[in-house]
Amino acid sequence: MQASGPLNHWLYAADVGEEIHRFASEIYPLCRSITGNGVRETLASISRQIDLEVNEVPTGTEAFDWTVPQEWSIRDAFIKNAGGKRIIDFHACNLHVVSYSAPVHGFYRLADLKPHIFTLPDQPDLIPYRTSYYQLGWGFCMAHSQLQALPDDMYEVLIDSGFHNGALTYGEHVHPGLTDKTMLLSTHICHPSMANDNCSGIALLTQIAKRMAGLRTRYTYRFLFCPGTIGAIVWLSRNEAILHQVTHGLVVSGVGDGGGPTYKRSRQGAAEIDRIMRHVLRHSSPQAEIIDFVPYGYDERQYCSPGFNLPIGLLQRSRFGSYPEYHTSADNLDLIRPSHLAESYRVVANVLDIVETNRRTRNLLPKCELQLGRRGLYGPIGGDPASADRVMALLWVLNLSDGEHSLLDIAERAGLSFRTVLEATELLMLHGLMEDLPDTTVC
Amino acid sequence: MQASGPLNHWLYAADVGEEIHRFASEIYPLCRSITGNGVRETLASISRQIDLEVNEVPTGTEAFDWTVPQEWSIRDAFIKNAGGKRIIDFHACNLHVVSYSAPVHGFYRLADLKPHIFTLPDQPDLIPYRTSYYQLGWGFCMAHSQLQALPDDMYEVLIDSGFHNGALTYGEHVHPGLTDKTMLLSTHICHPSMANDNCSGIALLTQIAKRMAGLRTRYTYRFLFCPGTIGAIVWLSRNEAILHQVTHGLVVSGVGDGGGPTYKRSRQGAAEIDRIMRHVLRHSSPQAEIIDFVPYGYDERQYCSPGFNLPIGLLQRSRFGSYPEYHTSADNLDLIRPSHLAESYRVVANVLDIVETNRRTRNLLPKCELQLGRRGLYGPIGGDPASADRVMALLWVLNLSDGEHSLLDIAERAGLSFRTVLEATELLMLHGLMEDLPDTTVC
Amino acid sequence: MQASGPLNHWLYAADVGEEIHRFASEIYPLCRSITGNGVRETLASISRQIDLEVNEVPTGTEAFDWTVPQEWSIRDAFIKNAGGKRIIDFHACNLHVVSYSAPVHGFYRLADLKPHIFTLPDQPDLIPYRTSYYQLGWGFCMAHSQLQALPDDMYEVLIDSGFHNGALTYGEHVHPGLTDKTMLLSTHICHPSMANDNCSGIALLTQIAKRMAGLRTRYTYRFLFCPGTIGAIVWLSRNEAILHQVTHGLVVSGVGDGGGPTYKRSRQGAAEIDRIMRHVLRHSSPQAEIIDFVPYGYDERQYCSPGFNLPIGLLQRSRFGSYPEYHTSADNLDLIRPSHLAESYRVVANVLDIVETNRRTRNLLPKCELQLGRRGLYGPIGGDPASADRVMALLWVLNLSDGEHSLLDIAERAGLSFRTVLEATELLMLHGLMEDLPDTTVC
Repeated sequence: MQASGPLNHWLYAADVGEEIHRFASEIYPLCRSITGNGVRETLASISRQIDLEVNEVPTGTEAFDWTVPQEWSIRDAFIKNAGGKRIIDFHACNLHVVSYSAPVHGFYRLADLKPHIFTLPDQPDLIPYRTSYYQLGWGFCMAHSQLQALPDDMYEVLIDSGFHNGALTYGEHVHPGLTDKTMLLSTHICHPSMANDNCSGIALLTQIAKRMAGLRTRYTYRFLFCPGTIGAIVWLSRNEAILHQVTHGLVVSGVGDGGGPTYKRSRQGAAEIDRIMRHVLRHSSPQAEIIDFVPYGYDERQYCSPGFNLPIGLLQRSRFGSYPEYHTSADNLDLIRPSHLAESYRVVANVLDIVETNRRTRNLLPKCELQLGRRGLYGPIGGDPASADRVMALLWVLNLSDGEHSLLDIAERAGLSFRTVLEATELLMLHGLMEDLPDTTVC
Repeated sequence: MQASGPLNHWLYAADVGEEIHRFASEIYPLCRSITGNGVRETLASISRQIDLEVNEVPTGTEAFDWTVPQEWSIRDAFIKNAGGKRIIDFHACNLHVVSYSAPVHGFYRLADLKPHIFTLPDQPDLIPYRTSYYQLGWGFCMAHSQLQALPDDMYEVLIDSGFHNGALTYGEHVHPGLTDKTMLLSTHICHPSMANDNCSGIALLTQIAKRMAGLRTRYTYRFLFCPGTIGAIVWLSRNEAILHQVTHGLVVSGVGDGGGPTYKRSRQGAAEIDRIMRHVLRHSSPQAEIIDFVPYGYDERQYCSPGFNLPIGLLQRSRFGSYPEYHTSADNLDLIRPSHLAESYRVVANVLDIVETNRRTRNLLPKCELQLGRRGLYGPIGGDPASADRVMALLWVLNLSDGEHSLLDIAERAGLSFRTVLEATELLMLHGLMEDLPDTTVC
Repeated sequence: MQASGPLNHWLYAADVGEEIHRFASEIYPLCRSITGNGVRETLASISRQIDLEVNEVPTGTEAFDWTVPQEWSIRDAFIKNAGGKRIIDFHACNLHVVSYSAPVHGFYRLADLKPHIFTLPDQPDLIPYRTSYYQLGWGFCMAHSQLQALPDDMYEVLIDSGFHNGALTYGEHVHPGLTDKTMLLSTHICHPSMANDNCSGIALLTQIAKRMAGLRTRYTYRFLFCPGTIGAIVWLSRNEAILHQVTHGLVVSGVGDGGGPTYKRSRQGAAEIDRIMRHVLRHSSPQAEIIDFVPYGYDERQYCSPGFNLPIGLLQRSRFGSYPEYHTSADNLDLIRPSHLAESYRVVANVLDIVETNRRTRNLLPKCELQLGRRGLYGPIGGDPASADRVMALLWVLNLSDGEHSLLDIAERAGLSFRTVLEATELLMLHGLMEDLPDTTVC
């Protein structure tokens, strides 16, 4: 069943970047928060692409140290000037209202309103993105230049929001494999209209799941589309029984901008996913940066908490928090590009390719070299570099296939790409010179 | 009993540098050697500051490969010129006589006297410090410029010294802790009037012991004031039964000059004291140099001999032997400064602070992150750096408190100071979120 | 029996470079191939220097994946021009004929002949060295400039060669030691008139074996002179029963040119031979390069195949394949120099010296330092550097002789040469202060 790269045929899918960008654009306008209809509409969009199990977890459900909050809904919000004109309008831009703002209606002098207004003085034309999930309050976000221009006057303020017992919603897509060894692919769906963070991640994983459909895989793949923090925590609390099956994982977010790529290692630091990511990035994106785990970031915080310590890293392009458009209105559809999305897609696809095919094999004739020549396997060393790589790959695979080295180990030791080593292994298997080791799903 | 930094309140004692310098000045004039009254007077000075057990070990006592030598006493010594004038006078500077010189009285031509005269041709105005402990002989030390100016004449020479069966004297101060796990702090007391090497070390350890008095500590601290080499060897031979309790140690010498600091690792190389010193120096003295153990230096030679291999390093400022004033008359009270002594004091105090409080703890809710917000523990990341450090310290401590990492491990992994990590840990304990692991005195 | 460097007296043999060069010159003209009389004549030359067991292994003998080929013989070969003049003559240069060429006689137009002619367009005046061992064919090698000048004409071509059932021939010299722990020294003898590759290696090992004769050694040394690849494979197949005795080994080839030295680590990577080579090269040849194992090169390919994984590295000067004279007619007696051969000799001799004398010892008085002074062992630190090294070596040996460190470990840790550490150890043994640990042949 160890087919050579069952995923390979979709690795270099044409126009995949455009397709991802199209779907990111479709879900971009929705007003997401950690609960509510924005999330539901997003999941509905995804389920038009792939099979999706949508879960509703009631308000009040406990999950470890946390409790599923009430659902927040918002119908309207504005600031009107003395002339009755909406100078801030939620319907124009859903970033204007601090997410989870309590309802308010009243008239405020500018000085009294200001403590409720968030701006970015260093980026005066951008609107920041702010939330107030776990403490009650209300607020508006606007461009600093707009705030500066406001006359000292009286303003009418409305936030027509509400809280009610409802549910936390998340979606899960399972691609069943031949074994229950599982790779988790997780992305957050709770940010409103921000393209990179995280329409890009949602669209990329949707695309991966879609193109994987129907493929026979060794691993089971779980795609998790959940609100940040509370969503991952709820998922973990409901899936403790299967966590021992999770042998690899990636959190995917912010994968459409032009920076990075950046890979943040799992807490384990030298898990196989960490080694795979290093290998893939070294060969595909030499400019990539690899950073150590820190307990701050996206949902890898939860997966890598000490009670779980799952082998799950984070793939992004620019490091979160480090680019000027981060959590502002400038994180829009212009920031993400099909070419960047396609590169991110290829990184993930290459990772899955290695997850699927990495294993340990054994040279059946390990004493001395084999006489490759009489089997037509020995070409000239020198001459065209690809051919030299192929011969060196045969020699390396034969030399290191001692039951201790995985194909990834061999690729790293030889300085060759995983694919070159995989192809050499398959060729030697065809000639009956190698065998797979039983139970060598490397993990 | 795991109080948060019981030693902390004396870490930043005001004027500590001046106080150490004052005591160093008090003991500077005494004519010390490896045995005799200079040592006794020095120990008497120390015991006016702290409780001190003074031990007298009789001449002839065997200690491993060594034997306690006879006591050396000296009443007078001079070289007189033909006119009967003392051109060299022991009472003017006790460095003039080679320590442990045999008695001599006679008249010498300059040419016959010269083999008994030691100078520093490269530093012609300084008087060297020389000893002749373990081979019989006699000699004078003087400035090279003075020797050069002596006319070829007849000189009267006197060394009114003597050897007799007496004792080797050393002092020990014990600060008992709640456990018998012990840190040894050792310094040599056998050099005559040299300020840095080693009035500085004697005065620094005296000050540490004095300020520690009355504090409740987890560790027992043994302060050892002993003659170099033979004193440490004798102490080891009389204390073999308790050496298994010694889990950390420092030899302290030459801690008042402006160089370094320099830390020389224990023979073990990665003992906890080595890790603590690296951490403290990295945070307090970025210019510090850390060097590997070599079997040459001060009394760490004995503590780190292979039959003991104790986890004991050496703290000094300039590396011994490497500064021009080393073992000369220029190692005087001008060479050592209160500010340098205070910095050395803080290094040792910070080390003791970590020795006292380092331990392993366990996050009681290790699955997913805690909801810090509802406990008022979560402030903004960003903004003032100290506040960001505090929040990151909470996240790191929660993430790494898995029973495998000590607080020092966490501080090193997080790139934070030990104190920041300690305070985060204490805060989490106050909230009932962490527990100490039983028997986690890390050693 | 642990004599101090039994091999030492021949380490700095005078004129050894000239002697090696002389023997290399003697065997240079012989037309070697992987089988046949060239090999036999070479082995006959060697056996005039040292005892040699010559083995004949019949054509058709199986050895792992290989079969001993038929013997190739050649009596004459030429290309004659239209005027009947030999423009290529095997008797003028044995590189002209591709080794193992099938017989041919006929007349060829230049265009039809060209596919059978090998040249070096980038080095137009050199004749390449080519073989056709494992596929039938025929060919000539010549200077590219000569080929370019040939008129488009008809040429008479003759290769009067033949194949017959014969044998593969290799030679083995065993220097028996006090134990059967074995070091293998292997070199290939299958190249025709090439001086560096590998008359140099053959002559160097012959010289080593000759000068070792009569010495009492701890190790058994096996010197193997065999055709490349098939010779090593045959030897391995016939000696499987003793391979567990092989605790060190070196393949030696290309040791007379001015490059390098280069050491290629064994597949194990950190075997004792790898550590010894690093130590020797660091002290004797700071410009030396040490590279990791790759499964391409000389006979270390076979010794380091995964079924054996022997601790055997490769010593050469320039890296094979990397110098312009490699496998061309320019690899002649001018390329190799007595001074380079002598340096290579000293490297191997120093390696053997360490192999013979490295062991673990124990300080019999490990508690505190010894009083070296009363034994006359303590000289001044400082002053002449060799004397300081000697004292530091005593201190290091005493400090690290705890049964865990070998003399090589101590030398590496102390930054001293192995010999300095060995001499300090011997001196301490003379004084009864150390003992050898039983069974401490380090391997």
